[in-house]
Amino acid sequence: MSGQLTIVGLGPGPAGWVTPAANAAVAAADVMLGYAPYLARLTPRAGQIFEASDNREELQRAVRALELASQGKRVVMVSGGDPGVFAMAAAVFEAVEKNPGLANDFDIRVEPGITAMLAAAARIGAPLGHDFCAISLSDNLKPWEVIERRLRLAAEADFVIALYNPASKARPNQIRHAFRILNSARKPETTVIFARAVGRDDEEIEVTTLKEAPDALCDMRTLVIVGSDATRSLRGNKGRIWVYTPRSARGK
Amino acid sequence: MSGQLTIVGLGPGPAGWVTPAANAAVAAADVMLGYAPYLARLTPRAGQIFEASDNREELQRAVRALELASQGKRVVMVSGGDPGVFAMAAAVFEAVEKNPGLANDFDIRVEPGITAMLAAAARIGAPLGHDFCAISLSDNLKPWEVIERRLRLAAEADFVIALYNPASKARPNQIRHAFRILNSARKPETTVIFARAVGRDDEEIEVTTLKEAPDALCDMRTLVIVGSDATRSLRGNKGRIWVYTPRSARGK
Repeated sequence: MSGQLTIVGLGPGPAGWVTPAANAAVAAADVMLGYAPYLARLTPRAGQIFEASDNREELQRAVRALELASQGKRVVMVSGGDPGVFAMAAAVFEAVEKNPGLANDFDIRVEPGITAMLAAAARIGAPLGHDFCAISLSDNLKPWEVIERRLRLAAEADFVIALYNPASKARPNQIRHAFRILNSARKPETTVIFARAVGRDDEEIEVTTLKEAPDALCDMRTLVIVGSDATRSLRGNKGRIWVYTPRSARGK
Repeated sequence: MSGQLTIVGLGPGPAGWVTPAANAAVAAADVMLGYAPYLARLTPRAGQIFEASDNREELQRAVRALELASQGKRVVMVSGGDPGVFAMAAAVFEAVEKNPGLANDFDIRVEPGITAMLAAAARIGAPLGHDFCAISLSDNLKPWEVIERRLRLAAEADFVIALYNPASKARPNQIRHAFRILNSARKPETTVIFARAVGRDDEEIEVTTLKEAPDALCDMRTLVIVGSDATRSLRGNKGRIWVYTPRSARGK
């Protein structure tokens, strides 16, 4: 029997945001691999094996997935959000490249998912309504100078900026460095959104400004969106705050 | 009875990529508004009204949605992809802002969807595996100089670049201008992906280089992804080409 490897995005959390295609891949799997909290969202059916791993072990997990699929297993590798955005799909293809021959006898598929910035944006309006970029602030895998350079150029380009992995216990201060850089290039009133645990029971969304942003609570489960010059806030029904970036842009 | 307006993302096309939350909103609607080809994907249930409109009429459609919701209707506004990415959600909030009072008596919700770049990326591997940006090449709503400036800065930042609305009958040459700009800032071997009609029967994905990109077929249904310096191609099972951008980046 020929194996198969599907890298699946489970979205930010709620079942209502998991695509039917992702669910079908999960249902058909012999073995499920993934970071423990993502596997914990799923209920194994009889005969299905779950192999949880830690979140620093992405490359080992990817190689393990290739080995199991090459043995004829239907393997699903789960990611939160979308597997192609700062997640497992790139790790799997890196493992394919580093282990020539291991992935020659089975098909690989990627099932997209709702990535954190889309969910966060939907909750607060339409802040990504115009040109935007996504930057991971984690310097586990890239030097801080690269991050800093991209932040400066993104600010200069007046992109809306989605910041993934803004902070962790090991890196509590990077988001403050990032805000310092952005503060030097964007006006202090620029809208900033802190979207924490989107789609979960403890979801919390804070809208503030670049000037005030360094004081906001920010952790591993937070996605930060920094507006462009055009990003606007307005009050809706029952005083609710909406943030959106207009579809049109003026020249300088 | 209190009305409601939900702006729903239907993803790139296949039913397997429509979230359960989007389907639930569609099922509960009294009135569905949208660009005709998106409404054509849905089957009205008894008692449901479909109002199709042209794709240049976004603001009028948004005002109409607010009017119907203020009359107590459960209104769904459909978008392809994700409603917050170059789509209807920003138009709705623009209409709310321009029509004070009209949206005071009902709730608005946004239901995220799989946006084109995530679907295109999934089909070809993981090209968005590292820092990236999304730029719309349509100059209906912004001057070309803004687009040009963002392309230059995005190239300088070494972002992977997703180009939405790369060409239309009215704008056949903008994508060529874009490639000229990118060619002057990035190496000619940079990977470029043309993902056409992703998820449809006539889906077609072409992988080429920045040097050859101006000769590729590109239309309204195409999403273009331009790799970073780090983006790589490799051959998988049965000669299939995969493209991915590694999770790690080196300094300059």
